[in-house]
Amino acid sequence: MNSTQYSQNPFSAASLLSENLSGLTLVEERIRSSFRSNAPQLTEISQYLLSLGGKRIRPLLAVVTGRLFGMYPPSAELVSAAAGIELIHMATLLHDDIIDESPVRRNRTSAYIEFGLAPSLITGDFLLARAFGLCAHLDLYVIEATEQACVELTEGEVLEGHLDPKNPSSLEDYLTVVRGKTASLFALASAVGAHISGASERSTELLKDFGYLAGISFQMVDDILDVTADEDLLGKPTGTDLRQKTPSLVNILWLTSGDPEAVRFFNAAAITEQEAKAAAQLLRADAVREGSVIQECRKTAEHYARLAQEKLLAVDDQRMVPAVRDQLIGLLHYTLERVK
Amino acid sequence: MNSTQYSQNPFSAASLLSENLSGLTLVEERIRSSFRSNAPQLTEISQYLLSLGGKRIRPLLAVVTGRLFGMYPPSAELVSAAAGIELIHMATLLHDDIIDESPVRRNRTSAYIEFGLAPSLITGDFLLARAFGLCAHLDLYVIEATEQACVELTEGEVLEGHLDPKNPSSLEDYLTVVRGKTASLFALASAVGAHISGASERSTELLKDFGYLAGISFQMVDDILDVTADEDLLGKPTGTDLRQKTPSLVNILWLTSGDPEAVRFFNAAAITEQEAKAAAQLLRADAVREGSVIQECRKTAEHYARLAQEKLLAVDDQRMVPAVRDQLIGLLHYTLERVK
Repeated sequence: MNSTQYSQNPFSAASLLSENLSGLTLVEERIRSSFRSNAPQLTEISQYLLSLGGKRIRPLLAVVTGRLFGMYPPSAELVSAAAGIELIHMATLLHDDIIDESPVRRNRTSAYIEFGLAPSLITGDFLLARAFGLCAHLDLYVIEATEQACVELTEGEVLEGHLDPKNPSSLEDYLTVVRGKTASLFALASAVGAHISGASERSTELLKDFGYLAGISFQMVDDILDVTADEDLLGKPTGTDLRQKTPSLVNILWLTSGDPEAVRFFNAAAITEQEAKAAAQLLRADAVREGSVIQECRKTAEHYARLAQEKLLAVDDQRMVPAVRDQLIGLLHYTLERVK
Repeated sequence: MNSTQYSQNPFSAASLLSENLSGLTLVEERIRSSFRSNAPQLTEISQYLLSLGGKRIRPLLAVVTGRLFGMYPPSAELVSAAAGIELIHMATLLHDDIIDESPVRRNRTSAYIEFGLAPSLITGDFLLARAFGLCAHLDLYVIEATEQACVELTEGEVLEGHLDPKNPSSLEDYLTVVRGKTASLFALASAVGAHISGASERSTELLKDFGYLAGISFQMVDDILDVTADEDLLGKPTGTDLRQKTPSLVNILWLTSGDPEAVRFFNAAAITEQEAKAAAQLLRADAVREGSVIQECRKTAEHYARLAQEKLLAVDDQRMVPAVRDQLIGLLHYTLERVK
């Protein structure tokens, strides 16, 4: 997503981005300087992946959380942590594309296809080493939180491989996976933003919880967009989760709905891109109906956004800047509006 | 390799292992405790890989280098660093087996085949996160040296993918690759052993250089063994490097030798296991001849072992224990004896 896509809601997201642009620019420079290497291909693949764009939502969260407690521009430590978190995220994108054999990322050829399996895999390891270099220089809290988040990330990924999209009882498992795979880095970003900007231990804990819940809501919205958004916005074909039978929120709630069409769909040995698009169309057409799969998904995403908001509202740190808190709440709502 | 294989030369290697066993046991315990995870498969794959055995030569080097400067048993810091280095090594084994599509490691099914690509890849990332957790708690020297070694490792791996085994001018490239891919973790192990045990900056630098050179010699011996050793010792078919046209020392020197058989061999579109074994047999049979490929390989490995020894002999730290230095030199010679 580029900044123009935020402009539909200037109150929250566009202003959040433009107001924090100088902080994010510092992070971007730190990320780019981490790409230095004696092996040109490691730099090339890293730059290629960065050039594909992306929301930079994790660094944004780290920078804005710092600002929430009065730190702006972000200190060198916060810039390092934010850059390190984005590098970890980039490494997982490289490794995920190998695992999923994804030909496309953000409307461009994936690094896996563009450069091959071995160079992509090794570049992921390289980015993890650079992230280590950035985060290991920081204090014990950041080090332990970073290790914890990386471990949760791998736990989420390996558990995801064990989920059965044909088993409708797996919403709880879905939450476990998403908590690790997506929310852990959101929680890390908001926790280190709070910690490095000098928030109290209680506030840091609340911001960490906020990150987990916001991350879960964010992933749910992402899952809905897979069905409701068009290819240009997604950067890949609509209905990819349907076709790959990914245990996404939409797939799980569709199966749980008792719709015999869902059972038939997921029991098929292989699903073509055309069939997946048709199923997405079916779910979209039904979305106006109260109790439809998409509406239930939205409600679930809203529920987690509300829980995230409650954590923010519970912060009573004296240094907390209410205007920034309201922007963060605006960001939660903006995310949800994308699937309205 | 198990300890009984060392017993052919009780002076150096067996005594080195048995004398440092309590230190290595501490490292092994630290490694095992790093396998804890909420995703049982991450623990399972890590334990599987550890159970395949291996020389544990990197932790041994860290522990013995600490002892060289009077530290025994190793401090908690040195145990952490040694365990972290072995975890990094284990992560690269998991990722290498994916890249090389290796069905076998140490006479057993590789984790890649046993558990599949995705779980193996993710477990590699998990082990890197745990290594980060162990090493990031240590001082700035260890942190920077660890990042550096990990980056060199990935650089060596990605450069290896660009080497052309049909191009005989690549001995220099081979050294660049081996320096990164193998020697960097040897250098890290001996440098942190020296640093954590309180060696001077100069001694630490010498031990780091020792590690690089010993690592290069070690890899060269490994390359020779691929041709001269039998399957049981190798844990994989003899001549695997030949079959896969790996840019190994043997392959490069065979091509450089001008032997028309080498050109014919490496120009073949595909090489069967039988053909690779026949070529290995040919090279072995020729090994008695002065100037043969295997003899040249041995000389090259000996050259680097001698350079490594010189670095050790240049250490004039007051706290250096000469008996341990002589054991380290013995280890260099023992390694070479395996290809005598």
